[in-house]
Order: sequence, then C-alpha cells, then structure tokens
Amino acid sequence: MKKILILDATLRDGSQGAGISFSVEDKIKITKALDAFGTDYIEGGWPGSNPKDELFFAQAKKLDLKSSKLAAFGSTRRKGCNAAEDKNLRAIAESGAKTACIFGKSWDLHVKVALKTTKEENLKMISDSVSFLKSKKIEVIYDAEHFFDGYKSDKEYALQTIKAAHDAGASVICLCETNGGMLPSDIQNIVRETRNVFPDMRLGIHTHNDSGCAVANSIIAVEEGCIMVQGTMNGLGERCGNANLCSIIPALQIKRGYSCVPKKNLEKLTELSRYIDEIANLIPNDANPYVGRNAFAHKAGIHVSAVERDSKTYEHIEPKLVGNERRILVSDLSGKSNVVSKAVELEMGLGSAEDVNKIMNIVKEKENEGYQYEDADGSFYLLTKKAIESFKPFFSLKSYRVAVEKDAAGNIVSEATVKLDIKGKEEHTVAEGEGPVNALDNCLRKALIKYYPAIEDVFLTDFKVRVVNSDANTAAKVRVLIESSDSSKIWGTIGVNENIIDASWQALSDSVEYKLIKGADKNTQKKKTKRKK
Amino acid sequence: MKKILILDATLRDGSQGAGISFSVEDKIKITKALDAFGTDYIEGGWPGSNPKDELFFAQAKKLDLKSSKLAAFGSTRRKGCNAAEDKNLRAIAESGAKTACIFGKSWDLHVKVALKTTKEENLKMISDSVSFLKSKKIEVIYDAEHFFDGYKSDKEYALQTIKAAHDAGASVICLCETNGGMLPSDIQNIVRETRNVFPDMRLGIHTHNDSGCAVANSIIAVEEGCIMVQGTMNGLGERCGNANLCSIIPALQIKRGYSCVPKKNLEKLTELSRYIDEIANLIPNDANPYVGRNAFAHKAGIHVSAVERDSKTYEHIEPKLVGNERRILVSDLSGKSNVVSKAVELEMGLGSAEDVNKIMNIVKEKENEGYQYEDADGSFYLLTKKAIESFKPFFSLKSYRVAVEKDAAGNIVSEATVKLDIKGKEEHTVAEGEGPVNALDNCLRKALIKYYPAIEDVFLTDFKVRVVNSDANTAAKVRVLIESSDSSKIWGTIGVNENIIDASWQALSDSVEYKLIKGADKNTQKKKTKRKK
Repeated sequence: MKKILILDATLRDGSQGAGISFSVEDKIKITKALDAFGTDYIEGGWPGSNPKDELFFAQAKKLDLKSSKLAAFGSTRRKGCNAAEDKNLRAIAESGAKTACIFGKSWDLHVKVALKTTKEENLKMISDSVSFLKSKKIEVIYDAEHFFDGYKSDKEYALQTIKAAHDAGASVICLCETNGGMLPSDIQNIVRETRNVFPDMRLGIHTHNDSGCAVANSIIAVEEGCIMVQGTMNGLGERCGNANLCSIIPALQIKRGYSCVPKKNLEKLTELSRYIDEIANLIPNDANPYVGRNAFAHKAGIHVSAVERDSKTYEHIEPKLVGNERRILVSDLSGKSNVVSKAVELEMGLGSAEDVNKIMNIVKEKENEGYQYEDADGSFYLLTKKAIESFKPFFSLKSYRVAVEKDAAGNIVSEATVKLDIKGKEEHTVAEGEGPVNALDNCLRKALIKYYPAIEDVFLTDFKVRVVNSDANTAAKVRVLIESSDSSKIWGTIGVNENIIDASWQALSDSVEYKLIKGADKNTQKKKTKRKK
Repeated sequence: MKKILILDATLRDGSQGAGISFSVEDKIKITKALDAFGTDYIEGGWPGSNPKDELFFAQAKKLDLKSSKLAAFGSTRRKGCNAAEDKNLRAIAESGAKTACIFGKSWDLHVKVALKTTKEENLKMISDSVSFLKSKKIEVIYDAEHFFDGYKSDKEYALQTIKAAHDAGASVICLCETNGGMLPSDIQNIVRETRNVFPDMRLGIHTHNDSGCAVANSIIAVEEGCIMVQGTMNGLGERCGNANLCSIIPALQIKRGYSCVPKKNLEKLTELSRYIDEIANLIPNDANPYVGRNAFAHKAGIHVSAVERDSKTYEHIEPKLVGNERRILVSDLSGKSNVVSKAVELEMGLGSAEDVNKIMNIVKEKENEGYQYEDADGSFYLLTKKAIESFKPFFSLKSYRVAVEKDAAGNIVSEATVKLDIKGKEEHTVAEGEGPVNALDNCLRKALIKYYPAIEDVFLTDFKVRVVNSDANTAAKVRVLIESSDSSKIWGTIGVNENIIDASWQALSDSVEYKLIKGADKNTQKKKTKRKK
C-alpha cells in the first residue's frame, strides 16, 4: 500500500473562507483532533502575518502530537533583501515548527504584476528562502503557487522555479492550482509532463474548487504520481473552497488502495468533519460526499426498497467505513417503504398498511403547511405515535403570554407565563429568560419538573429560524427548528406558524414530549423484556 | 464549435433531493426559465409514478417553448408484460411530451436483486420499451442506469443492454453513473472503451456527486466523446446531488470551446441559479463554483490587492461572463485593502488611513461579539458612516414593549409599542402584527412614515436566525439577519443579542436607517452634481 502524505491546511487556507474566524483555542482543539486522526502535516498558520498565529505556535509547541508535524506557512523572502533579514522567514524560524511550508511564484504574470520584480530575482528568492530555512534545520515543503497557470503561460520558467526549490533542498514540491480554474485533463497532462522532466522529484498537489473539480484534480494528480495531497476538512477555504480532504482520503484509501491515515481512523471521518464545522460554527453541508447527513439518505421509493435488499444497489460504499449512516427521508415524494423504514430507524412499530397510509397522508398535509420532517425526527415520531396509538398527552396547553420590554435605560426584561393542564391539575407558572423563547422554556420546565423529573437533563443545543412560504398564498410563515439533547441522544423538533413565538412553542413542547414518550416507551420495553424472562 | 446537448433534470432528479418539494406552479416557472436560458431538454417528471407530474405535463403542453424539448421520464416496461400494456409507458405516451427519457438496467446485480428477472428478459424489456415509444413517434433518450458499475461487473452484458436500446431506435444512449462512486479515471477508461466498441453511437453522460467528482466526471466524458450532459441546476439531487450544470456549462463553453447554450445567455447563469434556489426555498450555496456569492469573494489581504491590479491573478474567469460579481469580504483576517475596496463597492468615500484603521478596529470588536458583516452590507455601511462622519441619527429609540398572548381558544395576538425620538419629537406608537417582529416593524413604520415617506416601499424579504457563540463564555447569543428591498435594491442588516427580540429590533432599525441614509446621500450627490453644472 503506497503511502500518500496528507497536509491539512484547514487552520490556514481554511480560515480564509468566508464566515470563518478561528480563535487560538479553536486552533488548538482542531490540531489535537487532526493529530488523533493521523494527519501527516498540519499547517497551523502564518506566523509572520498574524499575531494570533504566532500565539498559536507558541502554545502548540507544548502539545504532545503523536502523528502530525506542525508546519508554519509563509512566503519566500521579499525582493532585494537577504533571507536571514526577512521578517516573515524569521517568524517561521522562530515559531518552533519543525516544518515550513513556503510559497513562491511560478507564473511570470505574478512575478511581474504582484511581485514587480524580474524572473531571475524570483528564482533567487525561492532558492535563498529554502536554503535559509534548511540552514535552521527546518524541513521545507515548497508550494509552487499558480504552477498550472504558470506552466501554460511559460512552461520553461515554471519548471525552473520548482527546480530552484528542489535544488535548494525542499523535501516536497507541491504543485498548486491556486485559482481553481483547471479542468481534469489539464492536471493530468501537466503533472504527467512535469514528472517526465523531473522523474525523481517528490511532488504534491494543492487544488481549489473554483471549477468544482478540486477533489477530482487531486485524485488524478495522485494517480499521476504525486505523493502528497494538501487540502482542508470539508473543503473550507476562500471563494469556492479548497480540495475537500473528507472526499479525497476515502477515495484514495477505499477505492484505490493507497494509505493516507491508519485504516481504523477512517471510521472517525464523519465525526471529525462535524467537529470541525461545530468549531467553525458552520452549518454542516448535508450533501457533503461520504460524511454529509444526506450522503446515504434515500428519498425515492424505489431506491429505498432496493437499498434495503442490497446496499450496493444505491450506495457507493458502506456508510460505516467512514463512520456515517443510512437515512430514510420522509416526504411527499416517497413511497410507503420510506415511512416503514423511517419507523424502523426510530425503533417504532407500524401495525398495518392502513397505519402507513394514514401517516403518509398526514405528512403530505403538514408539508403543505410548511413543516418538514427531515430534520425533525422528534416531531415525526410524535406525529406517528399520535396517529396510530391511543396517545395520552403528558400535558396540554391552556394559554401562554410572553412580554419583552426594553426601557429608556436600555435594560431588557423577558417574561413568560404559561397555563398547563398536567395530569388533570392546572399549573400556572411564570419565569424570566434571556429572551422570550428561553422564558417560555423556563416556564414549561418549571411546570413539568415535579411531575416528570426526567426532563431535567434535556437542553437546547440549537435554534434555527427561517421564513417559509406555504403553498397557499397566505402570510409568510416562520419555521422554527430546535435541536435538543440529553446525555445520550440528539433530536430535532419543528414548529410552523405566522408567529415566531407560537412556532417556537410548538418545537419546545414537542422536544419535551419526545423526551417523555421515549422514556415511557423504554420503560414499557423493559417491562416487556422482563415479562419474557 | 461542437454542440453539446444539455438535458436538465432539476424537475425530476433534482426534486428527489432532501428538503425539495416543487409544486406544479414551481415546475412551470422553472420550465420557462430553463427554456429562456436555452436548455435543449427539460426532464419534467415521471408521469407514471406521480399524479403531480401528470398534472404538470398537462399544463406544460400549453407552453410555447422556444429552445427546449420537454421529456417525460420513466422506466422500461415491467417484466413479463407487453410494453403497450405497461402503465408507466402508457403514461409517458399520453403525457404529450415529444421526448421520453427511459431508464433500464445495465448492471447484472440489479437485474437479479431489483428486477428479479433474467438477463435475457431485461434485454427484451429495454428493446420493447424503446420500440413502443418510437412507434408512438416519441424520441427516446435511453438512460443506462448504473452503466459504469455494470461495466465493471459484467462488461459484455452492460454493452449488450445499450446495444439493445440503440438498435431499437434510441437517439441518445446516456451512460449513467447512478451511485456516484466512480473516480475520474474510471469514467475516462470506460467511456473510451465503449466508444471503441460503438464508435457511431451517440453517447450521453449522467453523473452523481457521491465522490465529489460529478462535474469532473461529466467534463471528462465529453472530452472522451459524449455529446449530451444530463445534470441539474446547482447540483440539486438525492444524497450528494447530481452533476451541477452551473459548473459544467461554463467549463465546457468558456474553457473548452464547446457550445451548450447561446453565448449571451451564459451571462444569465448566476441569476438563473439563484432563481432556482428561491423557488426550491433553499439557501443558496455561497461556495457554488461560478455562480455562488463567494465564487469571486476575496478575504486574504494579499489576494485583494493583487486582484485589483489584474483580475487574472486570483480569478479563473471574469465573473461577468456568468453574470456574477467580485466581492470583497470584511473580517479580522483581512487587510486594509479589503476595507477600502468594500467602501468603494458600497460607493462610500473613506477619508484617510486613520479612518480605515478606525473601522478595522470596530469590525474586529463587533466580530468578537458575534456580528458578521459579510451578509450585512447595510449594517456595515451604517457602522462606517457613524464612525467617520458626523452622523445625525434619523430617529432614536427610547423604549419598546412586545407582548404575545395565546388564549385558551388558541387565538394568538401580538402587540408592540415603541417610543421613539424623531427630530426632537416623541412618537409613541402601538401596532399588532403576524408575530412580535412584524408588530415591532409595524410600530416603527407607523412612527416614521410621516417624517420619512421614502420608507413606504421598503419591505422585508428574508429573516434568518441562528444561535452563535461569542468568544467570551457568556450566554449564547442570537444572530438575526434581515434582508430588505425596495424597488431597486436589496440589502442585509444584522442584530446580535441574547434576546431575539432585541436582535431583531437592531436589524429592523438598521434596515430603515440604511434606506434613509442612502436616500440622503443620493440627494447630496444630486445637489453636488447640480452645483458643478
């Protein structure tokens, strides 16, 4: 199994993506996670350009990394100066990182327009910079910025630039497709020709996704002989993102037999992908290949029934190889097999074909009103329960009232009152909160806790709102999605209404009711199991 | 310029994506938009499996399409029956569509597991079905489902299946990579070998994105001689989506010189992409190649300064070729050149280096509190104005109060009161609304309208909320993003607070204030222009 080196640039190139801003603590957390995953190199940041990154390297030095080498990023020296005097290069040397990843210009256009210098001086800048870092006993990975554009513009010069880096002692020459404009056959031809000129050079590939081909281009480059892939988790990065390592690593490892990370670690890929999004505070891309929530989700009825017979029929790999799982989506497009499979996934029994039809009809009607159950397993479970069983509600709402007041001094107070019927008793509670939804939640809990202590460990983990348009041409509705969790499970619930407060109330009360009903179901199951014994 | 036929499957394959549900009206709108764009074939739906799709074809027949042929989708006949008696095929024939796109099995595994029939019967099913539709004077595009998996499993048989369709009269044989598991070299080799066996067969390509290679695989197949590409707008579709036509069309047309749609229409691509998302009620993917909001967005300071000198330095194509535009992002990573460029984009002057520093510091501080200006141009504009000019506020808030009440009968009332200081006068207004934010908005307008009639044509077009975590470990904050528009412009504003009502108030008042200040600026400019004259 041929080893392919993985350089993860999430902390550097990834942090240039729109909407991303990592704190030093975030960077330390990600470094630990990438090390545990078995990444070869972690590009930690650009110490010369950013004080936050200098602080990161100072702290990261103390980490006891098992698999990963930390790399400091930077550019070749400025024109017309001595490498030893270059602020950037000195910052790299002083960062404590044992590896440097420095980029230089391969494209004559950039030498002229961006550097405003001569082609000869650029070659010296490359050579001097690599030599300086090597003299400090630092391994150098050389990033040939815009190599492919440069090759198309002036092939001889582009090749001279990487030869300069190689001759000065760079351990890997990484061919960068900086603008992301190349199509697969460009990469295939140029890597092949470069390998023919320098058969013994250790080449890497670094691509961007501006043409939607970053993953394919990286895989092609490896098949043409590159031994390093640079990319980011989830393809984070500027513009359309960098090459997505969550797609490249499983492809190379599962489908082509290369070794990128220890085999058993691949099963942690989905978890790692979501962890990175969580730290970056990004909504995960459900369509993310291999690791996305929908990567193995089936909606069309014929797909669902086939995949249940043989997973290969509509799944390109077994989801568990990357730690992901199959999902069955419930929607008005789907057939009966989806509703049945979803019920199995949620561990609930559906009695008869009549039950299934009944639920399908309710789902269709609710979808017309703006509900969507794909992210709201909890609400779907309740809907099903209520439709097919004699469901005894844990509580029922009589009325609520919410007030938010901001006074002339700028103080804000949110207060809610809720009147519930619980086991035949009226409970009338009042509570304040950080905001109106939090105040309502507090009221609800206050009323329920003495009857149902189990709700104590339920907490809200996410709250999302968006405007939806219902099929009827009435007022715009608001859809609230709440994610809740207890110590062992995460569930989603939904509410839809013209009024955000009422939509939130629906999602809140579904969340609590789901927790209670699952607890009751579990008790019933336990009793059943006991009886069998 | 070689013509490549484009078959758009957004209405069929696209609608199988998670979270997508098109009404018949939606489908008609999309059909018109795709026709105006110059798409060759529009796969409208599956009349045999879905009453909604039958209704669509009945209505679509009446459209006067200029460029597009409507195609009805379906499968080959069931096993052991006569094609003329097959419900599915008859529904296609009766749909009124002049083109049919039918799929049949190429993979021996599927013949066995999904169809549960013999290889011979499957060949007959293919041949019979194509012949039947041809006898009804319908053009047949044959989708060879799982062709690549089939080819790897039993090459001879896979080739026999497409020969059966071809010999029965199919006009195009589309090789489908149904599971999305193939890597680029698989596609290259198998298309090349198939072309060698059947050099005169007109081949198409249909890929899915499970390996993140759908776009690349489609482009490679065209370079290997396929003359049709099937895909969806924005890559909508089941699991990880279908091949994204918004990436494939510009690549083939701009970078490889093929002709897919009329040249000038390509400039409508970004608009079309966003229109489709709007109808599908999806948040557009900002990182979507070519057409995404971030496709030409620059954050790193060095990129911004280079791209302003020569766009080729960090942009693979000119954004306007696909109707997109360059964006400069303002964030704590970015240098001064970003703030300056953003100011130019918003048509505002920044006086001095001191001004720029001042704004950069404010932005950093605000970002720490959870604000993000990338989607909130309006709020960024106000922030800058307030920081560098003697800004005279149009109004100021003294207090507000919001109450939402649900009574025992289930009626909900939302009422707000707002006390404002406007031009030295106190205005105290009360209003009801669909919800608390709408009630606040109504109060604000009621108070302002007599002083500033320009706000009459401002309306809210989107409202999004999410929980953000501030850097400090305090209570979770809520970030509200509002999109507003008047007859000529769209702008975004932002509010952040622990309290959703107060965050909404900030975004609402920024929205109105932005409208007023832009109007005032325009008047000042007009006056200046007049004075010059």
